[in-house]
Amino acid sequence: MSERLDRLTADVRERGLDALLVTDVVNVRYLSGFTGTNGACLVGEGVRGFLTDFRYVEQAAAEVPHMERATAGRDLLRDVADHVTAAGVRRLGFDDGHLTVRAHRRLRELLPDEVELVAAGAMVEDLRAVKDDREVRAIAAAAALATDVLELLRETGFRGRSEREVARNLEHEMRVRGAEPAFPTIVAGGPRGARPHADPGDAPLEAGSLVVVDLGCRIDGYCSDCTRTLAAGEPGVEAREVYDLVREAQAEALAAVHPGARNRAVDAVARDRIAAAGHGERFGHGLGHGVGMEVHEAPRLAQSADEEESLRAGNVVTVEPGVYVPGTFGVRIEDLVVVRDGGADVLTGFSKELVELDP
Amino acid sequence: MSERLDRLTADVRERGLDALLVTDVVNVRYLSGFTGTNGACLVGEGVRGFLTDFRYVEQAAAEVPHMERATAGRDLLRDVADHVTAAGVRRLGFDDGHLTVRAHRRLRELLPDEVELVAAGAMVEDLRAVKDDREVRAIAAAAALATDVLELLRETGFRGRSEREVARNLEHEMRVRGAEPAFPTIVAGGPRGARPHADPGDAPLEAGSLVVVDLGCRIDGYCSDCTRTLAAGEPGVEAREVYDLVREAQAEALAAVHPGARNRAVDAVARDRIAAAGHGERFGHGLGHGVGMEVHEAPRLAQSADEEESLRAGNVVTVEPGVYVPGTFGVRIEDLVVVRDGGADVLTGFSKELVELDP
Repeated sequence: MSERLDRLTADVRERGLDALLVTDVVNVRYLSGFTGTNGACLVGEGVRGFLTDFRYVEQAAAEVPHMERATAGRDLLRDVADHVTAAGVRRLGFDDGHLTVRAHRRLRELLPDEVELVAAGAMVEDLRAVKDDREVRAIAAAAALATDVLELLRETGFRGRSEREVARNLEHEMRVRGAEPAFPTIVAGGPRGARPHADPGDAPLEAGSLVVVDLGCRIDGYCSDCTRTLAAGEPGVEAREVYDLVREAQAEALAAVHPGARNRAVDAVARDRIAAAGHGERFGHGLGHGVGMEVHEAPRLAQSADEEESLRAGNVVTVEPGVYVPGTFGVRIEDLVVVRDGGADVLTGFSKELVELDP
Repeated sequence: MSERLDRLTADVRERGLDALLVTDVVNVRYLSGFTGTNGACLVGEGVRGFLTDFRYVEQAAAEVPHMERATAGRDLLRDVADHVTAAGVRRLGFDDGHLTVRAHRRLRELLPDEVELVAAGAMVEDLRAVKDDREVRAIAAAAALATDVLELLRETGFRGRSEREVARNLEHEMRVRGAEPAFPTIVAGGPRGARPHADPGDAPLEAGSLVVVDLGCRIDGYCSDCTRTLAAGEPGVEAREVYDLVREAQAEALAAVHPGARNRAVDAVARDRIAAAGHGERFGHGLGHGVGMEVHEAPRLAQSADEEESLRAGNVVTVEPGVYVPGTFGVRIEDLVVVRDGGADVLTGFSKELVELDP
């Protein structure tokens, strides 16, 4: 944790700030180790403040030994303002991507006029995007557990069960193994698989349909994310063709992952492949996203990524092209990978052959 | 849903606005019925716009038949701005309690100069604070289910199990019954109960300790919230005294709940009772909070509530005083109630006698 604070302090100095105010609950946890829901960090040269309210004083004492702790009222901002003033901060950065218009106005009112509030968004997210070894191990453990749970489908099959039953069972198996679902598990069969974010339904999964299964675990605050498209019996020629296309696009995008690769360019590898096969309009989301303490975080692999943005060693991202044929079926194949000097280190263990259950 | 839009439209007009932009995911769901994670509503006289992105088009068609739907790019704000302009809106309200500084700045850049952006926070939350009959039934169903799950503890007891095992089992029983936990279940024994928001631990619950159990269910988008403090065997004289004090304070506060009662005054009933017994410093949180689509929503029963704020028929609130003796134990007793003309209609069924398990 202290090393993270050192890195952030250097960034704060480089931006010409005296301190950065961090209030987002995940960013606070990343910097402080605090797992409660109401806390704030104030970080700069010689400033290592942590504030929380009455409810969390004991917990903070145990979790945040390395910062200067203070107890605030339920309204943290008032005490933050006092802290800022006491620390002699003149240029205070805040995360404009998290702080609401109202909180910003209130902070402005509480601070003396001579303190300048400077929009400084995503500084902590930028640190978080590059994982250290401990973090990679945590994510890999979550990914391995998700793979184990997915493997259970080979035994149980889908036969006779609804999407909801399958999803609930997968989540139950995660919990039995000591994890929580990182997000609501998606099990979407046939035409429902054409909705990239369908809630599981109550009808039995039908023979011959493709089933998109998208699941992730959270262990010790770190997430995994994995999608496979399985077949509930023989799915037919068109489904197999689309499956093979997505699988090839996914493999080509994986091969393009390395430090220095432009995020947009990696997205384009899969997108161009799918477009060349005439399905360009049917791949309506980005290729991938960062995964860590949150299941969606920086960086993004997408057409809309910043032109200059490129992958860094230690990024952990999904690579998940999809083709969605409205009213018919959907295919998505998603791996979770660590960006290494040698290329993509894949954390997802489940086969990418089209696995046919209930034959 | 349409009635909600009518009520909001009236409020929008009363505030002198042409339309209100709603982007918070829960508020969007309340107004539109949309259960996805990326959507926006634009509501005013003659304006009933709903925007979502590619991923949710089919889902929106099914869930939002009563609004004028449009498909946006992943960056909703650009399309929102186009919609605002096309609708001829000149004074556009936005929720300053949700919109971030960055989103606000971007919206300002995207809108023509003649469109005025007006901070109009909490308008939807204010509607949500008064529940209709259908909502009360949903919350009551969630509360009844939580009570059923809590009753199971009488059979299983705590004996030999850790806080984590007990919490996991309670959550499993919710899921078996078709609900999700509305928040992570708290099971906190002995000194850990003195932390109002402790995560469950791995040590076995000890004989003679008080155990705070705080749990809630979510069904069909509505939450419940309930706390009981149970005894793992005979807890001793001091624990019983504090328990009786909290129980009396809770009963007195319940009796003070009726439409028109000042929120602060209801909090003060319990607070004064606890302070008179010398434990004022040990009740460090508010008396209660609204519950509905979120487990914490308007109104609040707290010292810091607005002086003029008073309860309305149809509010659903918790009444949950607590006394936390650092390093020793904690007691919290929480009911969920509907504010009715006749007083508090209690939705929580579990006994408020000190229930002794593992005798």
